[in-house]
Amino acid sequence: MNAPNSSHHLLPTVNQRAIPAPMLASLQAELGDRCSTALVVREQHGRDESSFDVPPPGVVVFVESTAEVARVVQLAAQYGVPVIPFGVGTSLEGQMLAVQGGVSMDMGRMNQVLQINAEDLTVTVQPGVTRKQLNEAVKSTGLFFPIDPGADATLGGMAATRASGTNAVRYGTMRENVLALEVVTASGEVIRTGTRAKKSSAGYDLTRLMVGSEGTLGIMTEITVKLYPLPEAVMAASCSFASLADAVNATIQIIQLGVPIARCELLDAGTVRIVNAYAKLTLPESALLLMEFHGSPAGVKEQVDMVQAIASDHGGDTFEWAETPEERTRLWTARHNAYFAGVQSRPGCKVITTDTCVPISRLADALLDSVNEVHEAGLPYFLVGHVGDGNFHMAYLIDPQIPQERAQAEQLNHRLVERALQLGGTCTGEHGVGLHKMEFLTTETGQGAVNMMRTLKRALDPKNILNPGKIFIL
Amino acid sequence: MNAPNSSHHLLPTVNQRAIPAPMLASLQAELGDRCSTALVVREQHGRDESSFDVPPPGVVVFVESTAEVARVVQLAAQYGVPVIPFGVGTSLEGQMLAVQGGVSMDMGRMNQVLQINAEDLTVTVQPGVTRKQLNEAVKSTGLFFPIDPGADATLGGMAATRASGTNAVRYGTMRENVLALEVVTASGEVIRTGTRAKKSSAGYDLTRLMVGSEGTLGIMTEITVKLYPLPEAVMAASCSFASLADAVNATIQIIQLGVPIARCELLDAGTVRIVNAYAKLTLPESALLLMEFHGSPAGVKEQVDMVQAIASDHGGDTFEWAETPEERTRLWTARHNAYFAGVQSRPGCKVITTDTCVPISRLADALLDSVNEVHEAGLPYFLVGHVGDGNFHMAYLIDPQIPQERAQAEQLNHRLVERALQLGGTCTGEHGVGLHKMEFLTTETGQGAVNMMRTLKRALDPKNILNPGKIFIL
Repeated sequence: MNAPNSSHHLLPTVNQRAIPAPMLASLQAELGDRCSTALVVREQHGRDESSFDVPPPGVVVFVESTAEVARVVQLAAQYGVPVIPFGVGTSLEGQMLAVQGGVSMDMGRMNQVLQINAEDLTVTVQPGVTRKQLNEAVKSTGLFFPIDPGADATLGGMAATRASGTNAVRYGTMRENVLALEVVTASGEVIRTGTRAKKSSAGYDLTRLMVGSEGTLGIMTEITVKLYPLPEAVMAASCSFASLADAVNATIQIIQLGVPIARCELLDAGTVRIVNAYAKLTLPESALLLMEFHGSPAGVKEQVDMVQAIASDHGGDTFEWAETPEERTRLWTARHNAYFAGVQSRPGCKVITTDTCVPISRLADALLDSVNEVHEAGLPYFLVGHVGDGNFHMAYLIDPQIPQERAQAEQLNHRLVERALQLGGTCTGEHGVGLHKMEFLTTETGQGAVNMMRTLKRALDPKNILNPGKIFIL
Repeated sequence: MNAPNSSHHLLPTVNQRAIPAPMLASLQAELGDRCSTALVVREQHGRDESSFDVPPPGVVVFVESTAEVARVVQLAAQYGVPVIPFGVGTSLEGQMLAVQGGVSMDMGRMNQVLQINAEDLTVTVQPGVTRKQLNEAVKSTGLFFPIDPGADATLGGMAATRASGTNAVRYGTMRENVLALEVVTASGEVIRTGTRAKKSSAGYDLTRLMVGSEGTLGIMTEITVKLYPLPEAVMAASCSFASLADAVNATIQIIQLGVPIARCELLDAGTVRIVNAYAKLTLPESALLLMEFHGSPAGVKEQVDMVQAIASDHGGDTFEWAETPEERTRLWTARHNAYFAGVQSRPGCKVITTDTCVPISRLADALLDSVNEVHEAGLPYFLVGHVGDGNFHMAYLIDPQIPQERAQAEQLNHRLVERALQLGGTCTGEHGVGLHKMEFLTTETGQGAVNMMRTLKRALDPKNILNPGKIFIL
């Protein structure tokens, strides 16, 4: 889904550096027709799922190997021009927008699954592999890769934003699941971080420094992640609650009691309505938990019994079971498409998505007041949540032609983030900072920590060529 | 256990900087009798469990607050003098030795459990809290902290070395379990990293950059870690195998099949003999797996059934069950004391401990050849392993008066590490690099990655005052 390029929004800085002619000539000499300055190609690489409107990059290159990535970065370093890795364009916070111009490096052709080590539960991929492609590739091994942001994102993009998704409550995020990387540094050198060993104390954790750095410290060219045995038994169910508070409080108790639930997703009544309309489902249109349980048959049964008892204590008595794999797929596809369903529910809208994550005991405080506020404001929205993690997304659906709607959404977002930070949470559970959350980052972690990030950025990228202008302004 | 200070070993550099008189005066003015230059105190803080012999630090300070840590670091920065945080002195790779002189900062009085958030399964502690103290403090909540290096180490030391222990196979290491930190930087500034939220994409992962940095990038003054519900059911057993290969192969299969075993520890026959003698146990003196299972009663039963079937396939038919909590404690205390049992088995010896960790499928290759080599060499040793993680420790017991024994041990260690690296593993699963594994680190991760670590160190500690001379030489 490509948002129309028609609205304007205050950005921290848009100060585009031009591509010097000799650099362009070198790129063309190296890459031939895999180097494009065509406007349509540049525009395609100049937008993502965020609501920002930024001029497109000066050139797009379609790289096919680590050596080509290194070569392009070497040229960028030589000429002091930005390089922005591009996966499939599903980032939500403007991470791949060329705010300082430069080269958009399309990683889509680096999409090989390089090495499946089923016996070690690991796989090594190129960054352009998408999560669905990866799962297809490992299917025959009886293993799977659980991390599932809504979009069919690339592993490179997911690692760069420290993404998670619906399974994170049980399997962790990209933070826990990336074991090793090959990275091209800002000078165009190729380094390796980590090994396939499950744990290590060998020096600084460069792997996790790169994961979540949004392309600002290095460009990942190989990614080794963990795989998991497909659970012997899987059960999925939806459960309706009379109120959002009941659904949230049931979730809190499920987590506090340590139930190893695999997925625990919240939709509010309005969002269920939107999802039903989009996916032609008939889910009951009230606050809804979508849940999945993984384990042995007996283990799953234990989890289900516990969760049913907890839900019942909060008035959630009716579980609708998705019995077959097809029914389960339908349910989770509907959940994954909630974003697109929401966008379609208000034609022509743009989306401003929140992403706070709070300690589980504070989830009701964080979520319910924010829902009340959006209702009071009367702004269209949808609400989905990885509530098992304390993470939820309020998505404000604004008319880009009505500036006060954007202002209103940003104001609501601001109040929501402030509240989450006061409750000991973070402004972003899984989408990253990008262009949109720089101020929040400083409020959250303090000027001292942001200054340390700046120091790291200056040390590793002294010419400020790797995706500049994201996370913080240097 | 303090090893005698009598042997000599080639160190990368011992080049001690003196404490300038005005700095000493300032420290004494600030801290009074909590600043000591007494030789006995300095010597106590100038050794750890490694086999290195290094002159003691110039002064020891006993800090009581973050403000005091910051003040001491400010003075150290002003005078360009090293500061080395000291926990309880159980590091194995020389991490707290004053190779460049300076201030040993004893964190032992910063031992408050600051905030137990049982409803969020988190706790915030000062760095001087030990793992046993922490578990005592949270006992009444029904939660526990699983990470358990052999020694009763401090949380600060554990975070600094990215420690793990017997439970890591199920609960992860300090990498996965530290949520947030308060850190004093090299300029004496206090910063915070992370929040109590379970996940976050808010900028660079400073928390994990600090975890495992061995005190070289900042001094942790508060540490927030995850807690876990005490399992409803726990079963522990030992199982003997005819050969080490059988025990290792059983382990590999347990992990590959995804059994969520909580502990899976290997001892070889000689080590069982040593442990029996030390702890007055009667474990059968052949290759032995010590295992523990956590879960619901039914879940534990399922795990046990699966593991018994796997063990039986490898000739491990007899499970000795530790039925009561007391019996379990006895078993695991014996395991935790294996190190001390080993040391006592050769009076006056010093220990050179290996710490490789390999992908689980390569565990047999890594371990069995190394055992054959030490047998051929005829050097006394013991062998313990967190084999569920692919991590094992060969501990060579050398006579410090016989130089060729040290040379022989280092040669064996070298071969063992080379083998693990070739198998896709790491030179250190949980002990860290310290003074002992610098060369291995470069072989493992390559000069490029080590240079990136150096760049980070120079950026965050431009005067090289934070535990200098560890992990790499600047």
